Amino acid sequence: MTTYRIALIPGDGIGRDVTAAAWSVLEKAADKAGFTLDGQEFPWSCAFYKQTGTMMPADGIETLRGFDAILLGAVGWPAEVPDSVSLHGLLLPIRKSFVQYANIRPHRLLPGVKGPLRSEGFDILCIRENTEGEYSGAGGRVHQGTADEVAVETSIFTRTGVERILRFAFEQARARRGKLASVTKSNAQKFSMVFWDEVTRKLAGEYADVEVTSYHIDAMAARMVMAPESLDVVVASNLFGDILTDLGAAIQGGLGFAASANINPDRSTPSMFEPVHGSAPDIAHLGIANPIAAIWSGAMMLEHLGEKAAAGAIMAAIERTTAGGIGTIQGKDRTEAITAAILAQL
Amino acid sequence: MTTYRIALIPGDGIGRDVTAAAWSVLEKAADKAGFTLDGQEFPWSCAFYKQTGTMMPADGIETLRGFDAILLGAVGWPAEVPDSVSLHGLLLPIRKSFVQYANIRPHRLLPGVKGPLRSEGFDILCIRENTEGEYSGAGGRVHQGTADEVAVETSIFTRTGVERILRFAFEQARARRGKLASVTKSNAQKFSMVFWDEVTRKLAGEYADVEVTSYHIDAMAARMVMAPESLDVVVASNLFGDILTDLGAAIQGGLGFAASANINPDRSTPSMFEPVHGSAPDIAHLGIANPIAAIWSGAMMLEHLGEKAAAGAIMAAIERTTAGGIGTIQGKDRTEAITAAILAQL
Ligand SMILES: CC(C)[C@H](C(=O)O)[C@@H](O)C(=O)O
Ligand SMILES: CC(C)[C@H](C(=O)O)[C@@H](O)C(=O)O
Repeated sequence: MTTYRIALIPGDGIGRDVTAAAWSVLEKAADKAGFTLDGQEFPWSCAFYKQTGTMMPADGIETLRGFDAILLGAVGWPAEVPDSVSLHGLLLPIRKSFVQYANIRPHRLLPGVKGPLRSEGFDILCIRENTEGEYSGAGGRVHQGTADEVAVETSIFTRTGVERILRFAFEQARARRGKLASVTKSNAQKFSMVFWDEVTRKLAGEYADVEVTSYHIDAMAARMVMAPESLDVVVASNLFGDILTDLGAAIQGGLGFAASANINPDRSTPSMFEPVHGSAPDIAHLGIANPIAAIWSGAMMLEHLGEKAAAGAIMAAIERTTAGGIGTIQGKDRTEAITAAILAQL
Repeated sequence: MTTYRIALIPGDGIGRDVTAAAWSVLEKAADKAGFTLDGQEFPWSCAFYKQTGTMMPADGIETLRGFDAILLGAVGWPAEVPDSVSLHGLLLPIRKSFVQYANIRPHRLLPGVKGPLRSEGFDILCIRENTEGEYSGAGGRVHQGTADEVAVETSIFTRTGVERILRFAFEQARARRGKLASVTKSNAQKFSMVFWDEVTRKLAGEYADVEVTSYHIDAMAARMVMAPESLDVVVASNLFGDILTDLGAAIQGGLGFAASANINPDRSTPSMFEPVHGSAPDIAHLGIANPIAAIWSGAMMLEHLGEKAAAGAIMAAIERTTAGGIGTIQGKDRTEAITAAILAQL
């Protein structure tokens, strides 16, 4: 029997609730499909930080390297640990160390979910560059605290980084409806974004079966609201993808439905799966977090591990559950009730 | 009788149609209110570029300096003149030379207009920094065309630039419903955005009557779609403001309704008023461009010139027109018919 070793990092706040929910669904799906998930839980979180002074042990990344995949809940507790510590001490190092350069986020309405748009028939796959660009961390400040202060922040785009994410996106488009939207702002950012557009045009020659269109980020933000059904695969830089995927989460009814995968497509290191939402301190421990985003992320993990049938079974169970009106309205049903309904549908 | 000298730059494509429409409405409003608009038209555009080799004459900026305000249509004709030439040769130099650091864009639904959101009761004023930040134009590329290519693009934020736009936004919030949302991404951009947040906190002390909240750009994009009625004044950097105002245009029913003002609040140089939409080559010369965004921008110009009653009269005429179902659906009514209806209501 195939066994997959999964590192579980529930993290903080509602991350803990939704990871537990996702894990119970994953275990049942594995059982039915005839494979085993060998989960090992790591307590790395802001609470861990407050005890130990680090978000994860010094050998944390090396420990994770031995796993087939990572399932993460949410990281952060801003009232007690600054984001600069929590995110930069756990979430972001995992993405970068394991070269999880493709952050994939599907945006569509689950049956029974009423989104904020009148439009309902969209099915978008956003692909966000996850390792460089606007979040490279390069920059500085001079004359701090004075009237002459200047702060600079430098986006760094490499050909390796841009080409691999675009190639990945072209492949995804080819496997879906054959349409790729590449998002830049080359009319205002003349170095980084013009470069991205050039690489896009070069690759377009290799993927003649994919219809690729370049959009400016401002126009794309508007399009996701005005004509989301016109989009198939959308690829964007780290920052632009960050913005568009929160917008995508919004149009699909909220962060409770937004799943994500941080993928290293060459599979030399583990990939990480996590709901897009954060730790939501305001509703932590109330038992009302929607576990659907985490469970959907778990299904993406099984898909990535090659267990397509089990992944499909989980998605079908989620869809039957929301079609029945359970888990469709944020805060109405309890985490446990939604999880139980999905388990019953599985 | 007060006379205002207005520089008219219709520009390209539908810019020409909507500026003519706006001008006829402005003239009638001025006439009724008892002041004079002395308009002088400049043919600066992509067509001008193709004849002369520049988007405007070398002394263009000096010529404009003598006017009380500038009314612009739209600039650009990408099929014949690259954006790098058209925008960087006309629109952006005007914004920067005249220190029009506050780009103001109102987002609300006109009566009778059906937007893409189910939600209808929002009234947002976006204020975008217009002179520095992510569109500073600093950067470069090395090893161009090779596998080792790297492109960098540097955002530059100065205390002068950040403080003046935030101060302007606090003042606007004070004059409206007293709520200010400041938008950054300080959990991922640790130099520029942390700086912006610090300046925001410092100014918050001076404006204790304004309730200021900091949001990350991704969360704000989602909020504009999920809870737009929770927002009053939103202030953001050049790039973030660019994105949020196209999103704002989308939720208010489309670019046909999105007006804007590029303001130098100290009034030492002319401010510029323009619809947010571009030249729209695909519908140029068809006579179906919606002139409402341009007319609304004209009303913002009169307001800026101190002619509040005339500005209010134009807005009331626009609202009576759309309430009557004219101009509410993009492409349905002709430019002339919408303009005539607004003139009749004035
Ligand atoms: C928490 C933050 C650093 C993170 C990001 O921007 O990557 C989050 O917004 C996300 O989208 O996963
Ligand atoms: C045309 C472009 C340079 C411009 C900008 O980004 O400033 C436009 O998108 C706008 O919002 O006015």
